[in-house]
Amino acid sequence: MQVNATRLLSDLRELATIGKVGTGVHRPSFTPDDIAARQWVRDRLTAAGLSAVIDNAGNVYGQSPGHRKAVLIGSHTDTVPNGGWLDGSLGVVYGIEIARAIAENGGLVGIDVASFQDEEGNYLAEYGCRIFCGEDVTSEAQQARNQQGESLLDAVKNSGVLANPSARLDRNRTLAYLEAHIEQGPRLEAEGLQVGVVTGIVGMRTYRIVIKGQANHAGTTPMAMRHDAGGAALTFGARLLEAYRGAGSPDSVWNIGNAVFMPGAANVVPSEVMLALQFRDPSTEVLDRFEALAHSLLAECASAYACEHEIARQLLIPPTPMTPEIVDIVEQAAVDAAVPHTRMPSGAGHDAMIMAKYVPTGMLFVPSIGGRSHHVSENTNDADIVAGANVMLRAALGVPRRGY
Amino acid sequence: MQVNATRLLSDLRELATIGKVGTGVHRPSFTPDDIAARQWVRDRLTAAGLSAVIDNAGNVYGQSPGHRKAVLIGSHTDTVPNGGWLDGSLGVVYGIEIARAIAENGGLVGIDVASFQDEEGNYLAEYGCRIFCGEDVTSEAQQARNQQGESLLDAVKNSGVLANPSARLDRNRTLAYLEAHIEQGPRLEAEGLQVGVVTGIVGMRTYRIVIKGQANHAGTTPMAMRHDAGGAALTFGARLLEAYRGAGSPDSVWNIGNAVFMPGAANVVPSEVMLALQFRDPSTEVLDRFEALAHSLLAECASAYACEHEIARQLLIPPTPMTPEIVDIVEQAAVDAAVPHTRMPSGAGHDAMIMAKYVPTGMLFVPSIGGRSHHVSENTNDADIVAGANVMLRAALGVPRRGY
Repeated sequence: MQVNATRLLSDLRELATIGKVGTGVHRPSFTPDDIAARQWVRDRLTAAGLSAVIDNAGNVYGQSPGHRKAVLIGSHTDTVPNGGWLDGSLGVVYGIEIARAIAENGGLVGIDVASFQDEEGNYLAEYGCRIFCGEDVTSEAQQARNQQGESLLDAVKNSGVLANPSARLDRNRTLAYLEAHIEQGPRLEAEGLQVGVVTGIVGMRTYRIVIKGQANHAGTTPMAMRHDAGGAALTFGARLLEAYRGAGSPDSVWNIGNAVFMPGAANVVPSEVMLALQFRDPSTEVLDRFEALAHSLLAECASAYACEHEIARQLLIPPTPMTPEIVDIVEQAAVDAAVPHTRMPSGAGHDAMIMAKYVPTGMLFVPSIGGRSHHVSENTNDADIVAGANVMLRAALGVPRRGY
Repeated sequence: MQVNATRLLSDLRELATIGKVGTGVHRPSFTPDDIAARQWVRDRLTAAGLSAVIDNAGNVYGQSPGHRKAVLIGSHTDTVPNGGWLDGSLGVVYGIEIARAIAENGGLVGIDVASFQDEEGNYLAEYGCRIFCGEDVTSEAQQARNQQGESLLDAVKNSGVLANPSARLDRNRTLAYLEAHIEQGPRLEAEGLQVGVVTGIVGMRTYRIVIKGQANHAGTTPMAMRHDAGGAALTFGARLLEAYRGAGSPDSVWNIGNAVFMPGAANVVPSEVMLALQFRDPSTEVLDRFEALAHSLLAECASAYACEHEIARQLLIPPTPMTPEIVDIVEQAAVDAAVPHTRMPSGAGHDAMIMAKYVPTGMLFVPSIGGRSHHVSENTNDADIVAGANVMLRAALGVPRRGY
């Protein structure tokens, strides 16, 4: 059994016309174009024979009739501002096409499909998926605002979905959750592979580090009498990057993404430096080790430059392993479809991060050209899109065979 | 012979009332308060028996009558915005008091006094002194504007000095130029000394360094595939600071005073970093060595992070040694006055930097409390102010004895 490649690509391109911006799309959650895209998904699912709704959180959810058990395939159709045409949409249209392909070939397996709302966090990341899974997001939702300061609750109300029925995850029905996504990184392309079998979503920690020294005239203050927050920050940054190189796993990534020097003049010794540090790894042990290194090197370097220091963890997302049996099923599907593939972690968050808490969950990646994403230039070769869909189809068929 | 301490301190405090801002003063060049201060200096010089003028560049210049040769003592009475009460004013009031003290004690030596205009570079640094020395500043003056965008030429015109006669350095008359100044650094205070015998004004070079990489998702881009401008910048900065520690002289100072990361987010690999580097030393050889180290380490670190780099020298001020014989005279004066002192370079620029090109020149420093300057909190103990004046008086008397 194969997907209909022409229909798959045609649907992806049609969806991309909603909110089109050059070669990309602009469909932040709850905007009219986002809701139009959700209506398009609902109509496509209805046309494929599923009973589909847009629920009161903005999620699209369709069930295959005539099945008491089903594999749920999903992702999201909202985008970042001026984003790409595949981030999220790929996984949703895979669901539509796989539901159609399986229904046309005897309907051996029930396929449900979801497009979750606000995965991108225009207001609140994975808002729709969390509600679908029954999580209580009330207090977060009350606070949530987009970058223009508009509130999530107003956006939900104004989008017109509030009177709709609610759709909730039925754990008795849902055998597994499968999500396909573009890699959003360069690895598959660089290695000449078509599919990444996602082993887990890495954990992530973000820190705001402040080093406080004293502003002084950079000409008249002898080196030994300075409290040079800049020197401390540069030395800490360089030593941390070096230390992480030897302390992580092959999947570890880390980044000092920002440094702000104050007052920021060539002739003034910096009084204060703020650094933004982030690292990710599939293992909590590695994340703990990286955090400990940041603490110890920061104390050492600040002290060497007679400075004070603060380090505050701003974000902690624990690693989410994919369900090992589902990882095996996706990998076997790639083998059976003769699609070149590799096991790899996801370096970014996805709805699967939420779903994995409640049902067996797996993901697959297709290559991103140039590793680009969250940008109108985001793209994937047609052949890779089709290959990924056929692996996902096989994986969906494989789930019930393995007893899920 | 001694200065009249009461009169000296009283004059300094009276001058500080013009443009008073809290414990400091606000007298940027060519403002009404700056001109009022210059009129006050001219009147004090006239009262002391000198023939004094405000010239058409805004310089105050007074000559001791009855002398064909004289020692010129000067500095400036303009200040940075919301500056201190001693930066510049100290050296000018020393001149007034020393002229008076020597005249009252038989007038053994002719003392001329100057307050040069715009030493602080409100429009054009050392503008007045350069004109006094006969330098052609025409094209620079035409371009010069203050931070509010007002032109220097308009400021000169509006200040009312344009119709005045011009005052020019007479190299046949001027035996030497002596300038006293607050240290603007913490060294004398820390060492418990009252006078710094300035050996020279350090050379300074300032650079704008740009490292160019590529913005990438900090979660999905493997470390080996990045072009991390941030990593290159941090490593370069740390290695440069370390290298300078072993490559300079005891008087070397260096500073990475600013770093700007773009786009500057924890989850994006920095695409570009700008660094501001400045270093100073009395020796051109050391400055050259520091520059070569910046070039070689930048190339090495940018390459290690697969980045491009640029380095542009924005400012080059060559070192200005003080005249060795005058340094000896100032030092001998401190010895004779039994004032604890040390030889030291000046880490900041002064009018003496210009004067030294034309006449034998020397400087002395008095301590800055807490090293503070260019701020209303700038201060010096009265006892140190008086001790510095007496050393300067002895130095002025010593110049003609040494045959200048």
